Amino acid sequence: MSDDIAAPSAFEVPEGYTPLDWRRGFGRQIGPLYRRVVGNAYRMGFRVEDHHTNGMTNAHGGMLMSFADMAWGHIVSVETSSYWVTVRLTLDFLSSAHLGEWVEGGSEVLSTADDLYVVRGRIWAGERTLIAGTGVFKPIQRRDPRPGEKAYAASDARP
Amino acid sequence: MSDDIAAPSAFEVPEGYTPLDWRRGFGRQIGPLYRRVVGNAYRMGFRVEDHHTNGMTNAHGGMLMSFADMAWGHIVSVETSSYWVTVRLTLDFLSSAHLGEWVEGGSEVLSTADDLYVVRGRIWAGERTLIAGTGVFKPIQRRDPRPGEKAYAASDARP
Repeated sequence: MSDDIAAPSAFEVPEGYTPLDWRRGFGRQIGPLYRRVVGNAYRMGFRVEDHHTNGMTNAHGGMLMSFADMAWGHIVSVETSSYWVTVRLTLDFLSSAHLGEWVEGGSEVLSTADDLYVVRGRIWAGERTLIAGTGVFKPIQRRDPRPGEKAYAASDARP
Repeated sequence: MSDDIAAPSAFEVPEGYTPLDWRRGFGRQIGPLYRRVVGNAYRMGFRVEDHHTNGMTNAHGGMLMSFADMAWGHIVSVETSSYWVTVRLTLDFLSSAHLGEWVEGGSEVLSTADDLYVVRGRIWAGERTLIAGTGVFKPIQRRDPRPGEKAYAASDARP
């Protein structure tokens, strides 16, 4: 994107959110995306920009789904410090997000039976739920813990 | 995207496919996407490029979902020449697509009861099914017919 440099000053990010540093691939292409730690949980967020919109200048359904995939599946990273793949997603589209709105998402674990993470997720903007649904994710390979993940806190050399 | 001009020569597009001319918004951001008319039906396609990939250099789940939304819902445009919204999607992820692969998708209508289009859809690469699922789409506003849509052929001033 040729306008990367100008982007950060184009809007304000709500307090507590820090940018995710995806520097290549699809994560960068649809960014910028942000994350905020909330107690033992987290939320992800993004501001609806022109490159996220459909013909009605609302966030495109594909963008909201991509965001849901990341925001709901991220809990597997937090819980297991693993790479993971998406097995199944069911998404109900309840409302739309307009250009300029701040969109947030998160999930909670319903089951980890058979090493599949089944989560209940929600995407929202202010008081409006945009998408509600269920995700099934499968951890495929352990990796080194990263900041914000449970194993990172445990392995950290804090005093 | 600053490399728009170079993109068309970077890979070959299978015969019969023509580019979709989305010039702004999310459709442009995740493109280029292509369409091919097959008898009374159509297919959509794209080549997996670096900006579509995840950390394993496969097509990101979000990209495949966004493509599924467009490739499956497009049947509502063809049938009704309407703007439409996505109501529900259920997607089973069966296989992954590698960088450089050509990915295709399409759907068939199962029901149009209550003015909701329920479709069964598939996304594939060669012989491999990548995603199978169901989509529910709602036409929201009629517009002028476009080439490739049923009403366009009917309204066309052919001899």
